[in-house]
Amino acid sequence: MTDLSRRHLLAGAAAVGAASALSPLGALSVRAATPPTTSQAPGFYRYKVGTIEGTSINDGARTFPMPDKFVTNVSKDEALAAADAAYMPKGMVTVPFNPQLINTGNKLVLIDSGNGIANYEPTKGAVGRTLQNLAAAGVDPKNIDIVLMSHLHPDHTNGIRAADGSMAFPNAEIMVPAKDWAFWMSDENAAKAQSDMMKGYFANVKKVYAGIESKVTKYDWGKEVAPGITSVAAPGHTPGHTAFAVSSGGSTVMIQSDISNIPELFLRNPDWHVVFDVDADLAQQTRHKFYDMAAAEKATVVGFHFTFPSIGHIEKDGAKYRLIPSAWNPVL
Amino acid sequence: MTDLSRRHLLAGAAAVGAASALSPLGALSVRAATPPTTSQAPGFYRYKVGTIEGTSINDGARTFPMPDKFVTNVSKDEALAAADAAYMPKGMVTVPFNPQLINTGNKLVLIDSGNGIANYEPTKGAVGRTLQNLAAAGVDPKNIDIVLMSHLHPDHTNGIRAADGSMAFPNAEIMVPAKDWAFWMSDENAAKAQSDMMKGYFANVKKVYAGIESKVTKYDWGKEVAPGITSVAAPGHTPGHTAFAVSSGGSTVMIQSDISNIPELFLRNPDWHVVFDVDADLAQQTRHKFYDMAAAEKATVVGFHFTFPSIGHIEKDGAKYRLIPSAWNPVL
Repeated sequence: MTDLSRRHLLAGAAAVGAASALSPLGALSVRAATPPTTSQAPGFYRYKVGTIEGTSINDGARTFPMPDKFVTNVSKDEALAAADAAYMPKGMVTVPFNPQLINTGNKLVLIDSGNGIANYEPTKGAVGRTLQNLAAAGVDPKNIDIVLMSHLHPDHTNGIRAADGSMAFPNAEIMVPAKDWAFWMSDENAAKAQSDMMKGYFANVKKVYAGIESKVTKYDWGKEVAPGITSVAAPGHTPGHTAFAVSSGGSTVMIQSDISNIPELFLRNPDWHVVFDVDADLAQQTRHKFYDMAAAEKATVVGFHFTFPSIGHIEKDGAKYRLIPSAWNPVL
Repeated sequence: MTDLSRRHLLAGAAAVGAASALSPLGALSVRAATPPTTSQAPGFYRYKVGTIEGTSINDGARTFPMPDKFVTNVSKDEALAAADAAYMPKGMVTVPFNPQLINTGNKLVLIDSGNGIANYEPTKGAVGRTLQNLAAAGVDPKNIDIVLMSHLHPDHTNGIRAADGSMAFPNAEIMVPAKDWAFWMSDENAAKAQSDMMKGYFANVKKVYAGIESKVTKYDWGKEVAPGITSVAAPGHTPGHTAFAVSSGGSTVMIQSDISNIPELFLRNPDWHVVFDVDADLAQQTRHKFYDMAAAEKATVVGFHFTFPSIGHIEKDGAKYRLIPSAWNPVL
């Protein structure tokens, strides 16, 4: 009835396509060919939470060969199988990064700041795009009132520095979780660091906050840290790792920060431990607690490491979870 | 251990948020508040197929109360339950629309043209955005070489007319499936139409193509209709309904057109019949055939009615299917 054969679907179509490359269709064309573009659409996306306006800001995505111990408690092959099931490039893993801009009506709050423009690598890493995508969204970095850190890992905190080392958001108050500040600023903890990764993280926090230590505001959990934004304890990934509830007019969006790293691996497999966790067992407990409630409440959840625009709902799927990405809304 | 209680997650957070609305934080703010924006990010997204550049162009999305017979062969309650499971607004169904711009290197081809700017309703329907999003993508409608119709339903074909009735793509060849042209242009078929919907569809085709009938190119299935673009028979939704294989350099992307309407209902439930199908049984056969092959081949599939950017992979899930949306790629 139809000719939807396997040949037509892929192999046949490819063969026809290959033949056309040799055909004179192009040469016969009268109109000049339109050159392909070289740039992707801007990476920002707006959403409403009551009267609050949120904007997901894409800092980019990094695709790299799956490390041997990206997931510390399963084999590399199992991790690769999960990446493959999510259609990631063969042998690779893709990690996206998405700070959130929250306009409370009174304050312009940037939750997390991305990898930093100093790490912008258009061809390699493709990260460090936060300033570029804020500009695309019409936001002057001078107008950011608060940079609110979920925790002090480099992909969240390094974006507070411009390429020349000056403050990227010169008028912003920088707010950090008190427990994370205490942990990462402790020379005693730094001296105990075993892995190069952990040593690097301690050194990075010292470097990024050098000279501005006294100006940083430390916040606790369960507080309204900015109008409509409440800090929610979510420890494990780091000691002070924090999620946020953004609430207005009876609506709430949960900013999960790094309660899971990429959902394709760690929301599908909530008992897997990402190499970056400081206390992976506690992170696992936090993860189950958060997702069980998010699923029961049908909460809208924003994930720093979800694919852009990084917004969705959580479904229980037996002992696992599934992320249902939200529909793109073309209007506000 | 954590204070991720139900109270904190939603109810508590909302209460804190409500309290803050009464607080003087705004009044005490020194910096002028940044006004919220009123516009969403532009709706275009680029992807590569070998040397071919594709751009998903969002024509908008329409959210409306679930009609009694949106799905003709199950109850309205079942249809609503599926919409609800996909987090659509209570009692409503959301249908997005996404034409595809294909730059073959030689030709700029627009596959389907959207609802038409005459139907642009920013506050109500939010459709008819194709010209606006083409402009955002840097495309002058005068440079479109071919408008390639998958079939002749209004949401695919009405966009060839500008607001004043003139041709929106004045230099474009308009290509239509020969079988759809024969079906919809037949006065005999039109006279047999029973429902207001079908009567309207026949009248609409006559109206949209009035005066340009002789200039339209009719194409058959299994042909290379433009460089690298092969027409694939996919009848049922309409008699001439066509999918497309876009192929270059060993890569292929399948443009499924309306092999399913919204995946939340008709890909999850491939035996459900959408009210718009001309031959729903044949559409159902086509759907299974297409998705079985797409799943087996791990094909990249673009759907006119998938949520923007409307690209994903198809997974088998027992007798159903599941769409896995592709990760947003911040680079080209």
